[in-house]
Amino acid sequence: MELYLIRHGIAEERRPDLKDEERSLTKEGREKTEKVAQRLRKLGLHFDLIASSPLIRARQTAEILIAAGLSSKVEECSYLAPDGRIENWAVDWLSPRNYSPQTQLALVGHEPDLSAWAEILLWGQAKATLVLKKAGMIGVKLPEKGSPLGRSQMFWLTPPKYLL
Amino acid sequence: MELYLIRHGIAEERRPDLKDEERSLTKEGREKTEKVAQRLRKLGLHFDLIASSPLIRARQTAEILIAAGLSSKVEECSYLAPDGRIENWAVDWLSPRNYSPQTQLALVGHEPDLSAWAEILLWGQAKATLVLKKAGMIGVKLPEKGSPLGRSQMFWLTPPKYLL
Repeated sequence: MELYLIRHGIAEERRPDLKDEERSLTKEGREKTEKVAQRLRKLGLHFDLIASSPLIRARQTAEILIAAGLSSKVEECSYLAPDGRIENWAVDWLSPRNYSPQTQLALVGHEPDLSAWAEILLWGQAKATLVLKKAGMIGVKLPEKGSPLGRSQMFWLTPPKYLL
Repeated sequence: MELYLIRHGIAEERRPDLKDEERSLTKEGREKTEKVAQRLRKLGLHFDLIASSPLIRARQTAEILIAAGLSSKVEECSYLAPDGRIENWAVDWLSPRNYSPQTQLALVGHEPDLSAWAEILLWGQAKATLVLKKAGMIGVKLPEKGSPLGRSQMFWLTPPKYLL
């Protein structure tokens, strides 16, 4: 099974009158994410499902991926909200679904969570060794059986600039 | 300082009448590596130096990178031969050179060594968590001071198919 961890695009700055979860993608963030999505499609990628953090900037990113034809299915996933724990996601969300080894899954979320999730998938622990830019992506191959934590392999890590 | 670990392209199969170190790139390996090199150049990459394993398939890969304009300087580096140890390379080869933080260095070599080198740069140890295909690449950012082992970050890992 392949997992694509995708960070949301460039969003509005934090400000006192705007809740963090309501920050939208900026025009630049939207355009760059669209270009990345088109390139991913051109490279032949297709996801069986896009699971997205419930925050607006992540949902908007997921919608751009859908619009580019990268998947026809999106769902909100509360584990992908900031500070979500991959241990809970793996046990409560992933494990009961019994996906086939051919499944291609995209997760749209936030930093520093997504790169920490990738590290935990590879190494079982996180220590900030991976640089994941906005609209960047990490590709991880999960083992066919058993827990993926500390037992997965990384085959792709890219900033958006190498996808434009 | 940025380090680009590049695996040689597809080479001749092992056979009894051919020394391992004399295996050349195949026609397909040469063509694919040329395409990767052209794409890297188009993405704006340029290396101050390409250090290559002394084995023919690595030297040929380095020559293709040079021909694509990715660097004007190549040198053989015995530490990059199969089973070379990054600990020795870091102390004996890299440290005395006092490269500036802006230096962009490419290392052309073999698997499973290069992905293990990257893991040791990030994590201080190797356990085969990274998939590095022939003519694929890993980009690692080294700290400005001190040993890079266990103290570096990865910003890029790509198979050639996403560079064609």
